[in-house]
Amino acid sequence: MFYTDNKLQYPVRVDAPNPLFARALQQAIGGVEGEIRVAMQYFFQACGARGNPKFRDMLMNTAAEELGHIEMLATAVALNLEGAPLSLQEEAAKDSAVNAIMGGLNLKNLLSSGLSAMPVDSDGVPFDMSHIYASGNIAADMTANIAAESTGRTLAVRLYNMTDDAGMKDMLQYLIARDTMHQNQWMAALEELGGATGAFPIPNSHPQSEEKAEFSYAYLGFQADGSEPAEGRWSQGASIDGKGEFTIQPMAPLGQVPDLGKAKPKSGAQSEQM
Amino acid sequence: MFYTDNKLQYPVRVDAPNPLFARALQQAIGGVEGEIRVAMQYFFQACGARGNPKFRDMLMNTAAEELGHIEMLATAVALNLEGAPLSLQEEAAKDSAVNAIMGGLNLKNLLSSGLSAMPVDSDGVPFDMSHIYASGNIAADMTANIAAESTGRTLAVRLYNMTDDAGMKDMLQYLIARDTMHQNQWMAALEELGGATGAFPIPNSHPQSEEKAEFSYAYLGFQADGSEPAEGRWSQGASIDGKGEFTIQPMAPLGQVPDLGKAKPKSGAQSEQM
Amino acid sequence: MFYTDNKLQYPVRVDAPNPLFARALQQAIGGVEGEIRVAMQYFFQACGARGNPKFRDMLMNTAAEELGHIEMLATAVALNLEGAPLSLQEEAAKDSAVNAIMGGLNLKNLLSSGLSAMPVDSDGVPFDMSHIYASGNIAADMTANIAAESTGRTLAVRLYNMTDDAGMKDMLQYLIARDTMHQNQWMAALEELGGATGAFPIPNSHPQSEEKAEFSYAYLGFQADGSEPAEGRWSQGASIDGKGEFTIQPMAPLGQVPDLGKAKPKSGAQSEQM
Amino acid sequence: MFYTDNKLQYPVRVDAPNPLFARALQQAIGGVEGEIRVAMQYFFQACGARGNPKFRDMLMNTAAEELGHIEMLATAVALNLEGAPLSLQEEAAKDSAVNAIMGGLNLKNLLSSGLSAMPVDSDGVPFDMSHIYASGNIAADMTANIAAESTGRTLAVRLYNMTDDAGMKDMLQYLIARDTMHQNQWMAALEELGGATGAFPIPNSHPQSEEKAEFSYAYLGFQADGSEPAEGRWSQGASIDGKGEFTIQPMAPLGQVPDLGKAKPKSGAQSEQM
Amino acid sequence: MFYTDNKLQYPVRVDAPNPLFARALQQAIGGVEGEIRVAMQYFFQACGARGNPKFRDMLMNTAAEELGHIEMLATAVALNLEGAPLSLQEEAAKDSAVNAIMGGLNLKNLLSSGLSAMPVDSDGVPFDMSHIYASGNIAADMTANIAAESTGRTLAVRLYNMTDDAGMKDMLQYLIARDTMHQNQWMAALEELGGATGAFPIPNSHPQSEEKAEFSYAYLGFQADGSEPAEGRWSQGASIDGKGEFTIQPMAPLGQVPDLGKAKPKSGAQSEQM
Amino acid sequence: MFYTDNKLQYPVRVDAPNPLFARALQQAIGGVEGEIRVAMQYFFQACGARGNPKFRDMLMNTAAEELGHIEMLATAVALNLEGAPLSLQEEAAKDSAVNAIMGGLNLKNLLSSGLSAMPVDSDGVPFDMSHIYASGNIAADMTANIAAESTGRTLAVRLYNMTDDAGMKDMLQYLIARDTMHQNQWMAALEELGGATGAFPIPNSHPQSEEKAEFSYAYLGFQADGSEPAEGRWSQGASIDGKGEFTIQPMAPLGQVPDLGKAKPKSGAQSEQM
Repeated sequence: MFYTDNKLQYPVRVDAPNPLFARALQQAIGGVEGEIRVAMQYFFQACGARGNPKFRDMLMNTAAEELGHIEMLATAVALNLEGAPLSLQEEAAKDSAVNAIMGGLNLKNLLSSGLSAMPVDSDGVPFDMSHIYASGNIAADMTANIAAESTGRTLAVRLYNMTDDAGMKDMLQYLIARDTMHQNQWMAALEELGGATGAFPIPNSHPQSEEKAEFSYAYLGFQADGSEPAEGRWSQGASIDGKGEFTIQPMAPLGQVPDLGKAKPKSGAQSEQM
Repeated sequence: MFYTDNKLQYPVRVDAPNPLFARALQQAIGGVEGEIRVAMQYFFQACGARGNPKFRDMLMNTAAEELGHIEMLATAVALNLEGAPLSLQEEAAKDSAVNAIMGGLNLKNLLSSGLSAMPVDSDGVPFDMSHIYASGNIAADMTANIAAESTGRTLAVRLYNMTDDAGMKDMLQYLIARDTMHQNQWMAALEELGGATGAFPIPNSHPQSEEKAEFSYAYLGFQADGSEPAEGRWSQGASIDGKGEFTIQPMAPLGQVPDLGKAKPKSGAQSEQM
Repeated sequence: MFYTDNKLQYPVRVDAPNPLFARALQQAIGGVEGEIRVAMQYFFQACGARGNPKFRDMLMNTAAEELGHIEMLATAVALNLEGAPLSLQEEAAKDSAVNAIMGGLNLKNLLSSGLSAMPVDSDGVPFDMSHIYASGNIAADMTANIAAESTGRTLAVRLYNMTDDAGMKDMLQYLIARDTMHQNQWMAALEELGGATGAFPIPNSHPQSEEKAEFSYAYLGFQADGSEPAEGRWSQGASIDGKGEFTIQPMAPLGQVPDLGKAKPKSGAQSEQM
Repeated sequence: MFYTDNKLQYPVRVDAPNPLFARALQQAIGGVEGEIRVAMQYFFQACGARGNPKFRDMLMNTAAEELGHIEMLATAVALNLEGAPLSLQEEAAKDSAVNAIMGGLNLKNLLSSGLSAMPVDSDGVPFDMSHIYASGNIAADMTANIAAESTGRTLAVRLYNMTDDAGMKDMLQYLIARDTMHQNQWMAALEELGGATGAFPIPNSHPQSEEKAEFSYAYLGFQADGSEPAEGRWSQGASIDGKGEFTIQPMAPLGQVPDLGKAKPKSGAQSEQM
Repeated sequence: MFYTDNKLQYPVRVDAPNPLFARALQQAIGGVEGEIRVAMQYFFQACGARGNPKFRDMLMNTAAEELGHIEMLATAVALNLEGAPLSLQEEAAKDSAVNAIMGGLNLKNLLSSGLSAMPVDSDGVPFDMSHIYASGNIAADMTANIAAESTGRTLAVRLYNMTDDAGMKDMLQYLIARDTMHQNQWMAALEELGGATGAFPIPNSHPQSEEKAEFSYAYLGFQADGSEPAEGRWSQGASIDGKGEFTIQPMAPLGQVPDLGKAKPKSGAQSEQM
Repeated sequence: MFYTDNKLQYPVRVDAPNPLFARALQQAIGGVEGEIRVAMQYFFQACGARGNPKFRDMLMNTAAEELGHIEMLATAVALNLEGAPLSLQEEAAKDSAVNAIMGGLNLKNLLSSGLSAMPVDSDGVPFDMSHIYASGNIAADMTANIAAESTGRTLAVRLYNMTDDAGMKDMLQYLIARDTMHQNQWMAALEELGGATGAFPIPNSHPQSEEKAEFSYAYLGFQADGSEPAEGRWSQGASIDGKGEFTIQPMAPLGQVPDLGKAKPKSGAQSEQM
C-alpha cells in the first residue's frame, strides 16, 4: 500500500527555463532508462518475489523512492517549459530563434499536455511497459536492475553535462548520487545471492549436467574466413562463474540444411509450393 | 559485412510436433528475452563502440552467432506447427481437444505466416526494437548484456522444462550452454573494463565529486511509519564499487510543495486555472 | 513523495487458483481500463495541475490509492497462477484439459515472469503509456477520469461475473465500490469546476465568438440519401452546456475539390506526377 | 456502408505555408486527441451497439463526419508543407533558419510521405488503435466520447492560438464549433440514458448490493501522516449519482502482508527461492 | 467527405456462432493484412496524391468500399461471439470444453468490448497505423497496395478454409472476390503508370546515371565460402525493368574497417573509451 | 548460419558531419522503409519458405546483404553525429544556430546512445517488427518485397537529394543501385512463379470457382450521388491476371441493417441495453 505527502523528495529549482532542456528531461521520465521504468520494474519485481521476503520489501521500498523521482522530474519539465512560445506569429516566421525553440520541442508537451510533463521520452515516444523486466528469478532481476541503473546514471550524467542551470545541476547531482547507490544496491543484493560464483549461471537451479558442456565456456568464432575472433578475458582463463575454463574456437555448422518440405493444401500457399 | 551458408548452426529436430510448444518457442524468437533482441543488441552496440576495437569485433562476432540462433528457432517453430489444424469443422466444434489446440495457438502463426515463425512473442506481440540497449558506454552495455543473457537462459530453461521432445531438449541444451557462456563472456568483458571497483559507478568518467556525496551510498527508507527498511548487504559494509560505506536512513522530504502557478492565457486551460 | 508499508490495502484471497482467471485479471492491471492507467493518469495530472492546488493534492492522493490496487491485483494474479502446469508431458498431449489450461494462459506469465503478474493486458499486450491522458486542462482531465472509471468499473463487473471464487469476489466487491466512488469523485470535481453549464464547452477559456456559431449546436447528417439522421435529445432542445439550441440538418460539402497540384522536383515522386 | 464524393466538408485554405504548423496539425490527425481516434471510436462503438438502434445510427453518422475531418486536416498538412526545404545544401548548413525549419519538421513527412500527411502525431509517433474505446456499454462509451471531444477541442484551440494564418484560423473555427457540438451531443446522449442519477454508477446493471457499501462513497486518504486529504465537493454532500453521501476518511491497510511462498521447482527461479 | 447509410454492403450471416472463429476474424479487421489497413492506406494515399487527379479519386472511392468491409467483419465478429461463456463456474473448471473456448478467445473481446469487435488482430494486438504506407510516390503506393491485397486475399482464403459455416463462407466468397479485383486494380493502375519498364525502378524520376551502375543489375552473393548463390531468373537475362542485364557475382568487402575513434569527453562513456 | 568480417560492404565516408543528416539517415535504418525491415523480412521469409529451396537460399543470401547495409548506415549516422553539441551553454541559449541543431536532433541519439545509431526512425520511433511481412505464400512475399524496395529506393533518393556531402552521396549511389537490383530481383522471382497471369490472384491455389465471380473484376463505385467513379485501365479491358474482364458499376447495399439485438445479462452493459 502506498502513501504520499505534498512535498518533493529533493528541491527542484529552475533558474532559467529552457524548453529544449524540458524535452531532454523527458528522457529521464519516459525513456527506457528513465524513472517510470525503474519505479515500475522494482514494483513488479516486488509483487512477484518468491523466497526470502526481505527482497520483496527492499524492492518495494526503492520503488517508492523512484516514484518520487518521477514527480521531481515532472516538476522540472513543467518549470522548464515556462516561457515556451505558444504561437507562430508571422513575425516569428522570420525569426529563426523562436522557430528553433518551437521546432525543437516535443510538440505534444504543448499540444497534448499544455506545458506539462508526459510519460514519453525525449522524442515524444510513449513509454512501453514491456520494458519492465520482472522475471520471477531474483538474481536475473538484480542483473536487470544493475543494467537499468547503469544506463540511468549515464543518462543523468549526459543531462548534467547538457545544462548550465544551477538549479537543474543541483537536482541532477542528487539523482546521480542515487544512481550510484542503486548500482551498488543491486550488486550488493546479487552478492548476497551468491555473487558471480554462487548465482551464475542464472538460473542456478538448473543442473549444468543438462547442458551441452562442450559449448558452455567456449568463445565461438563466426569470422567469415574461419579465423579466430578477437581475444580477451573471455577467451582464456577460468570462467567468471568459476565453473569452467574459457576456450576459443571457430565454429562450423553442425546442423542440417533446413527443409520444411511442401506447403500443406488449403494453407494459403501458392500451388507451386505444394 | 555478413555472410551465410545454407546450414543450421546446430541440429534442429522435432520428434512429435506440438503447436502449443511452437507458440512457446516464439518467446525465444520475439520475446524481450529472445534471440532477435540479443542479435540486434550486440549488433548495434558493435556499431557504436568507441575506444578499443576489440570490443567492437567481439560484439559483432557474437551478433553473428545469435542470428544463427534465430534461424534455428524459426525452423523449430515451423516444424512444431506441422499438424496444427487448419479448420474448425463442425465435428471439431464438439471435439474439445482440437479446439484447445487451435485456441492455444498464436493464430497469427496460422493466419499471417502460414504455419511459420514470426518475429513475435509467445502471445503474438511483435518485437519492439526499443529493447535494443546500446548506450555508447561500453560498461553499461555489458551490464545490459549480462541481464539479457540471464533472462535468456531463464527462458530457455523454462522451455526445456516444458517439453519432453527429445529433439527439442537436445537443441535447448545447446542454447542453454551458449547462454552460460554468454553470461560469462559479458562478465569477463566487464572484468577487463575494471570490474566492480574499476568500472562502477557507470559511467566512471563522471567525477564523483559532482554528485551529492551524502546520498551516494545511503540506503534510504520510504516506509510510511518512518521506520528503517529491511536490512541486507546493501545497508552496511563497504560499497561494492569500493568507493564508499553503506548506511541506512529513513528519508524525509527535502523539497518544496511543488507549485506551477497559474496557467498561461491561450494555453488551452480552463478559466479557473488562470 | 511516496511511501509504502508491507501490507495490502484490502485482503487478497484465492480459494481455488485458476490460471485462466489470472489471465483475465491481467486486464485490470495492464489493460487500458486497468489500474496502471488510472494510477499514472492521476499522477501525471497532479504533476501538471495549474491553478487551485487542491486539485493537485486530490489527484496525487488518489494516485497513491490506485498504486495499491495494482499491488492487490498483482498478488491475485500470482496466487491464481499457482497450479498452472509447467510442462507439456507426452501424456498431457492427449489430455485436452491440461492443454486447454496451458493454451489459455498468457504464456508470458509463465515464460517471462515465472508465474507472476506483468504490466500487460489479458492478451499479453504490454501497457502503453500513451493512454495517460493529462491535458493541462483540469476539466478535460476530469472527463477523462470519469471515462476511465466507467470502463474500469465495467471491467471489474465483468471479472466479478466471471468468477465463483469467494476470495476473488470479495476483493472485486471492494474494487467495484472504489470505482463507484471514483466515478462520483470526478463528477464532483467537475461540478466544482462549474458543471455542464460552467465548465463546457471545454476549454471554457476560449471565446465562443471565435467559433463558427452556425455549426456549434447543429446535429449534422451524413446520410448518403441526404435524409435527416436519427433524432434524439441531441437534435432538439437546449444544448447541455446551456449556451445554444440543438438543431438538425443534413450536411453538404462546403469545401473545394482538394488539389495538391504537381509533385516538386527531387521529392521522390514519379515523373508522371511532376 | 460508406460513400464519398470528391469535395471537402469545409474549405481548407493556407495563405502562408508553414511546415512547422504542418507538424502541429499532425497531432489533430494522429494524436490521441485527433480525428482518426474519434472517427474510428464512433465507428467501432456503432458496430458494437446493442439495444436501441438509434444510438448505433447516431454513432455511425458522426463517424462519417469525422472521416471528413481527417481528410480536411490531411489536406491542410500537405498545403502547409509546400515550401519545406528538401535539401541541406552546404550554404544552408550556415543558415540557421533553414536548418531550424528542417530540424523542426517531422522528418517522416518529408522522407516517408513526400510532403504529405501521415497517421502520426506531432512528434511522428504513429496512432495506435488501442485508443479506440468501445466498451459494449453505451453509457461508458458516451463518457469516453465526452472525454475525447474535450481534449479534442482543447487541442484545436491550441492550434488556433498557434497560427496567424487566416485560412487555417477559419478552418479551425469550424472544427472548434464541431467539437462544441460533439461535447454537447454525447452529454445529451448520456442524459437520454438517464443522466448522472440514472446512468451512474456505470454499468448500472450491476446491483450495488454486491459492492462493499462502506467504500462506495468514501473519499479515502492516503496521506503519509494519516491526516485527512484535501476536501472538496467530493468529500461531503450527496453523491453525484444520488445514491449515497460522501464521507472522508484516512485509510489504513486492511489486508495481509503478501506472501507468495517459495518458487516451484523447475520454474526457472534461483535455488535460494525454493 | 464521407456518407453512410444504415445497411451492410453485403449480407452477414452466422449460422453457428463460434467464438474462436470470431477471434480469427479479428485478424481481418485489425491485422496488418486487414481492412483497417487497406481502408486507411487508400485514404491517406488519396489525401497525398499529386499529379493526375484520377488516382486520388480512385483511391478514395475504394477507401470507402473498405470502410464497409470493416463494418461487415465487425458485425461478423459480434455475431460469432454470441454464446461465448461469460463465467468460469466451478463446474466449468472441470469441463475442458468450456475452458478451451474461454481460453481460446481474445479475452479483450469479452472484457474490454463486451462481446463486440475491436481494432485488434487475432491475438489481441491493436492495429498500429505505421502500417499505412502512403509514400507520395504513386507507383510505390501501387506496389504497396498489390502487396496488401495479396496478403489480404491469402488471409481471407485461410479464414474461408477454417470455417464450415455457410453464412461465413458466403461472406468470405464476396471478400475474396473483392481482393481478386483489387489485386488487379492496383496492377492495372501500375500498368497505366508505365508498367514494369516504365514505372521501374521506382522512383523513375531519379536519373539512373546517378547510381553505381555496376551494382544496379548484379545479383550479389554473400555465401560464406565465396561461392555463387542460387541462380534463377534474377541472375541472368534482361532485367525486368528492361534497363539492364542481370549478372551474378560473389561479393567481397569494398569498405574499410569502421572506426569511430575515441569517445568525446562528457559524452557519458567510460574513461577507457576516451 | 551467419558469419561476419570486420569490414564494411562499401566505403562509408562523411566529409562534413551533419547531425541533422544523421537524424535523416535513421529513417533508412529504423524506418518502415529501412534496412532492418528488409534484412529481417527476407530472413523470416527464408525461414518459412516451403517448396523449391532455391527461394529460401536466395532470400537468406540477400538478407545477409541487407545486414551489411544496416552496418554501413549505422556507421554513417555515428560519423555524422561527430560535432553535435553536447551542452546548452547559456551563451548557446542566445545562439539560435546551436539550438537549432540540438533541437533538430533525435535527442535519443545523444541521450540514449551517446552519439551512435539506434534502431529508430528519423523521428526517434523504434522499429516495430510487425512490419516483417512473411506470409508463407511465396508470391505474396515477393509482392511485399517489391513494395519494400520501392519505398526503400524512394527514401534513398530523398536522402540523396537532401545532402551535398560527397561521401554520403557516394554511399547512397551504391544503396540506390542495390535497390534498383532488388526491385528487379523480386519482380524476376515473381516472373519465375508465373508472373501476372500465373501467380495472380494470390494465392493461386484457391479455386476461383469459390469466389463470387460477379464481383471479381468489377470496379465498384462508392460515390455518394450514385455516379460512376473515375475510369482508368482498371475499369475496362482484360484484367491483368488474364482471367476476367474489367467492368464498372456503382454499388448499392446488398446486406441488411445490422442488428446485434439486446445485450446479454451480466455482460457489463447498461440495463437499457438489455
